[in-house]
Amino acid sequence: MEFNSFYPPQRTLMGPGPSDVHPRILAAMARPTVGHLDPTFVAMMDEMKVMLQQAFRTTNPLTIPVSAPGSAGMECAFTNLVEPGDTVVVCQNGVFGGRMRENVERCGGTAVMVEDEWGQAVDAAKLEEALSANPEASVVAFVQAETSTGVVSDVKTLTEIAHRYDCLVIVDAVTSLGGSPLEVDEWAVDAVYSGTQKCLSCAPGLSPVTFGERALHRIKNRKSKVQSWFLDLNLVMGYWGGGAKRVYHHTAPVNLLYGLHEALVMLHEEGLENAWARHQRNHLALRAGLEAMQLELLVAENARLPQLNAVVVPDGIDEARVRQLLLADYGIEIGAGLGALAGRVWRVGLMGHSSSKKNVLVFLGAMESVLSTLGGAIESGRAVAAANKVLL
Amino acid sequence: MEFNSFYPPQRTLMGPGPSDVHPRILAAMARPTVGHLDPTFVAMMDEMKVMLQQAFRTTNPLTIPVSAPGSAGMECAFTNLVEPGDTVVVCQNGVFGGRMRENVERCGGTAVMVEDEWGQAVDAAKLEEALSANPEASVVAFVQAETSTGVVSDVKTLTEIAHRYDCLVIVDAVTSLGGSPLEVDEWAVDAVYSGTQKCLSCAPGLSPVTFGERALHRIKNRKSKVQSWFLDLNLVMGYWGGGAKRVYHHTAPVNLLYGLHEALVMLHEEGLENAWARHQRNHLALRAGLEAMQLELLVAENARLPQLNAVVVPDGIDEARVRQLLLADYGIEIGAGLGALAGRVWRVGLMGHSSSKKNVLVFLGAMESVLSTLGGAIESGRAVAAANKVLL
Repeated sequence: MEFNSFYPPQRTLMGPGPSDVHPRILAAMARPTVGHLDPTFVAMMDEMKVMLQQAFRTTNPLTIPVSAPGSAGMECAFTNLVEPGDTVVVCQNGVFGGRMRENVERCGGTAVMVEDEWGQAVDAAKLEEALSANPEASVVAFVQAETSTGVVSDVKTLTEIAHRYDCLVIVDAVTSLGGSPLEVDEWAVDAVYSGTQKCLSCAPGLSPVTFGERALHRIKNRKSKVQSWFLDLNLVMGYWGGGAKRVYHHTAPVNLLYGLHEALVMLHEEGLENAWARHQRNHLALRAGLEAMQLELLVAENARLPQLNAVVVPDGIDEARVRQLLLADYGIEIGAGLGALAGRVWRVGLMGHSSSKKNVLVFLGAMESVLSTLGGAIESGRAVAAANKVLL
Repeated sequence: MEFNSFYPPQRTLMGPGPSDVHPRILAAMARPTVGHLDPTFVAMMDEMKVMLQQAFRTTNPLTIPVSAPGSAGMECAFTNLVEPGDTVVVCQNGVFGGRMRENVERCGGTAVMVEDEWGQAVDAAKLEEALSANPEASVVAFVQAETSTGVVSDVKTLTEIAHRYDCLVIVDAVTSLGGSPLEVDEWAVDAVYSGTQKCLSCAPGLSPVTFGERALHRIKNRKSKVQSWFLDLNLVMGYWGGGAKRVYHHTAPVNLLYGLHEALVMLHEEGLENAWARHQRNHLALRAGLEAMQLELLVAENARLPQLNAVVVPDGIDEARVRQLLLADYGIEIGAGLGALAGRVWRVGLMGHSSSKKNVLVFLGAMESVLSTLGGAIESGRAVAAANKVLL
């Protein structure tokens, strides 16, 4: 059998993540590997922690990248903060709330589910109801930016309610970090996990997390050991924690961390608020173009994520065929619907480096062409013109 | 505050890992990111599985890279194969046996420890004794290549004994895969985990694992859910498993996987047995040079790992100072002793791309110079000459 080097095609990644990785970040990952205890590497880690704090808008000392993808970041939050017998209120309005439930139950906890329809934001009144009916609850968990539906929920309000009932708050910010407002300290969120492959435009494989003082206190005063050795923050802190002396825990993914460092330098150069504004602007341009094609967004205007647009598949259109043609003819990847939304929506991501004027126009032009090919009554050029009006 | 791109120094990595990553592998990681469900990526994954099977010498269909470092690979093996109440016999002869114990206990199991001195191989007679005293044991775990001491243990014999007592076998091959003989099928090992940053010379962050039929049967017939959602092989198999249809589980670390693919292509080009022979040859050259400097290896000849050489620090020499000088003056990283061996040994790695004639000579020359500087009675050139005699 013959094996050859793999040369991936050049795609334009406009799905639910990964997003396009900027050439500067790709180049950073290709720099020579050094040891995970090398003094230069340790200094780079310290700098990265400061930049991550800025991205999360927090001064939490425990702000680090977990050495594995976002799902491991989620598990890190639950496995450290939930003990057997604990009750956790989980708000579910998409795929990832369901995964949170799995995490709670695998930690030996009981999940009280607060369900909202897929495509709706988490309902604060329902959360309050669940908390007053379950006074033993010690944690509330929800997703800020539901990647499966394109909905943003109100972290500030939900956190206030949870705190009134003496609960810690775990927030999934996988798709929001760097793309839309997240104010960890101002909103007093206790634990947040994210991913690198969305609005930070870095390669997948790391999960930035931040834990506040109350969360840390809970972790340090657990009755039982954290069930994951790899994700036990009591141990991980020995390596990432402050001070010059690093204790070996596991071998850090050195080159991936080079990439994240570069992504954070780029975010710093642009300015976090400018990045949020860019995501919003390109979303509005995309929306104008979609409307010109009579395509609808699934989510109501007040709960729309700029970086993940769930577009309703029109009647009579073969949704998978559209994705295939976009990929084959234009190298554009968009996402399919997940779970309850499978076959009903396309998920168009404008995340990080993928959130650019150029991508908006290229996507709209390609979509016009593909829908025309499939028999849609599309007047060529209208969508691009509508988007351009917003962008100019 | 100012943040700038990070340019790591050019090191020669001769510690316990990571090893030097070949430029071809660095270049592979810098190729454009594609989606983790992209058809070209899926085809690459299929090819990688075949190459991993060859590296492990197995036909196990469940042979994949876990999306996190070796410690997560360890946790993947234990968390899938150990259920609450299970008894696991853990053979410990270094740091990593202790970590295995942590894993067993955090899975709710009981660890029966078989202890050997650090620097000794696992004693087969002691394992047999422990198994006959603990007939309820269902798993035996041990480390093939102890990175903390440089000892290789006899996988074949230990596995035979474990099977006689109806136990599954978990083997830690983090430092052996690609560097010294490992015959998963011939020796009938049930579960093996490894790392990418040792003898495969890839960047850290992935953990190749393989699970045989008996292990798979145990996983599929568990009484309880695997406590880690991220590492639950029942779910991971939906993504990595055979067939054209991949089910999304977590976002794979795409660029790291490009790197592993390239590393495996290079291993295939060299030939696995040639790679083993190269590691052995360079080890013998290093040994000759060390002997010429009157430096001793910790481990007896019949249990020495070629890729990890624990060198006894001579009396009166400041071991940390030696490492500092090697790093500062020559850019050479070697490792310190861990745990019981802290301050007593240096750990000199000759792993993967770092296992080269050039590195042996450069290290010996630098070591002669550093030891002379620190007052050792070193006759310059003798060590290099002794090594060259082996290499020619």
